[in-house]
Amino acid sequence: MSDDYVLAADMGGTNLRTSAVSRDGSVVHQRQVPTPRGAEASAVVTAIVDEAELCISELGRRPIAFGLAAAALVDSAGTRVLSSPNLPQLNGLSLADKISDRLGIAVTLENDATAASIGEHWLGASRDVDISICVTLGTGVGGGLIVGGRPFRGASGTAGEVGHICVEPDGVACGCGSHGCLEQYASATAMVRIAREIGVGRPGSKLTTLADFAAVDVYDAGLGGDRVALETFERVGRYLGIAFAGLVNVLNPHMIVIGGGGAGAWNLFIDHVREEMSGRAFEHPAKAAALARSELGNRAGFLGAAKVAFDLADSARETDQSLS
Amino acid sequence: MSDDYVLAADMGGTNLRTSAVSRDGSVVHQRQVPTPRGAEASAVVTAIVDEAELCISELGRRPIAFGLAAAALVDSAGTRVLSSPNLPQLNGLSLADKISDRLGIAVTLENDATAASIGEHWLGASRDVDISICVTLGTGVGGGLIVGGRPFRGASGTAGEVGHICVEPDGVACGCGSHGCLEQYASATAMVRIAREIGVGRPGSKLTTLADFAAVDVYDAGLGGDRVALETFERVGRYLGIAFAGLVNVLNPHMIVIGGGGAGAWNLFIDHVREEMSGRAFEHPAKAAALARSELGNRAGFLGAAKVAFDLADSARETDQSLS
Repeated sequence: MSDDYVLAADMGGTNLRTSAVSRDGSVVHQRQVPTPRGAEASAVVTAIVDEAELCISELGRRPIAFGLAAAALVDSAGTRVLSSPNLPQLNGLSLADKISDRLGIAVTLENDATAASIGEHWLGASRDVDISICVTLGTGVGGGLIVGGRPFRGASGTAGEVGHICVEPDGVACGCGSHGCLEQYASATAMVRIAREIGVGRPGSKLTTLADFAAVDVYDAGLGGDRVALETFERVGRYLGIAFAGLVNVLNPHMIVIGGGGAGAWNLFIDHVREEMSGRAFEHPAKAAALARSELGNRAGFLGAAKVAFDLADSARETDQSLS
Repeated sequence: MSDDYVLAADMGGTNLRTSAVSRDGSVVHQRQVPTPRGAEASAVVTAIVDEAELCISELGRRPIAFGLAAAALVDSAGTRVLSSPNLPQLNGLSLADKISDRLGIAVTLENDATAASIGEHWLGASRDVDISICVTLGTGVGGGLIVGGRPFRGASGTAGEVGHICVEPDGVACGCGSHGCLEQYASATAMVRIAREIGVGRPGSKLTTLADFAAVDVYDAGLGGDRVALETFERVGRYLGIAFAGLVNVLNPHMIVIGGGGAGAWNLFIDHVREEMSGRAFEHPAKAAALARSELGNRAGFLGAAKVAFDLADSARETDQSLS
């Protein structure tokens, strides 16, 4: 059992990263290719299977299970994609079964932000924390809940969509069909849009001199004291604070973990998050809720998927033993 | 055990109602007096104890426990008032212990909306429902969560404060210290304020002819087709829909139960709630979440408190048996 390993993949909007992970969470092999975004569903399945087989061949022995994290609503069985804005060709597909049939390995599918919350609880910022919420600031804003030390999936597997809490009722249209969602005010994508909005008529800002820029440029400008960038992160922080205050009032968690690429700007927005939260949330639950930065960074998703895969293999082994 | 009963009291902003409740949830005796709002903490304790003793004396035998529901944040042990906007003199008081010392009976304290969620789960709309949220529309907006068939209290006992989700970031100031809370857009109090706002310059409305009116008058006017009243309930419904869509996206519940006096206007607001929810929440969790009207009405709070009292007595009895 000590040389058991699982495969764990994180399929984001940009990259498909496939890893071999051992029981202690160490990554013994890793590969990365671009996510086949425009391809048919069968081509996506093939890309995942090919990457998995290359990992297995490199290690020369078989994994005990495979955990796949994806930016999608996933059913509670960890099998089927309910809906995915980034990979709509997978909607309704029993993705885990398709991959399992091809590889001959047990496969479990997990929402990427729920996987990140599991990863942080296993090896990261929320180790030993009973009730935690993990919020990932990336292309979108994802979320995952841990309750009683276990992932909370809700009635049909989709719980945790913190990015689609409304923070501005008549706000910016969201890819989910609603408008004014947190995702439109706190994702890396939103940081760029907000900086553009704030930068109008502000020629003194470094950002307004750039033809095109990304969230990391807003961050760099902010570090250099650029007012447009600093106001952008203030606005992002305030909207995060509005959503977090509601989560604190409703769920009374021990911790909120902030991850994803946007968490890199932690030092530029976190004071505004704290200020808005303390102005809005009840004092007792606000004191109970620590705000923490992700410790696993972009490893949180696949490490969480690895943990789910180990749990799947272990529970199958227990079932086998109780039947034999 | 079949003639066991518990005392259950619901201390609201207006009335203190004390009941004797049997194992099947039937109310075998009930008393009501005004809540001693301005009185010192000791006078509140005395009022509760006096009412309890009158119940006990009427029944001629002792209850096995006492459950008290109050409009307050309560610690996770069910002992201490953390804070209460209606009865601030109780802040920090170990209310359950004070009453227990005087009566010589085990006492447990519960937030009134959490008690309502327990009551509805025991005997009402959410019987046998695994994950439910109960929202009470009264003087304020309360909330309670049931997860895995049990009350979910969070890290320090205060979870469920649905009324203090922000639905309008620059909105009306709230008693909690924040602004734009759901409570300011969906409580019975808010219904009156919104009707006044909408009624300005609308002399055709029956409501604008009244010097003073209550939520029930807005309801009556709405039943008669009064446009100001109907627009009021549309606005209330839309704000409830904004908050519920967030709850559906984050918690993916099986059911949301609406109770409290304001639920009386169900038929005037519920279509607007559904429309706003379906425009904002993800399709899969929205389909999973039934909207239901409270079946227990104003009995939900004390029946929930009674259930908690039975559970307390039963767990004490089990501990006794395992020690003997």
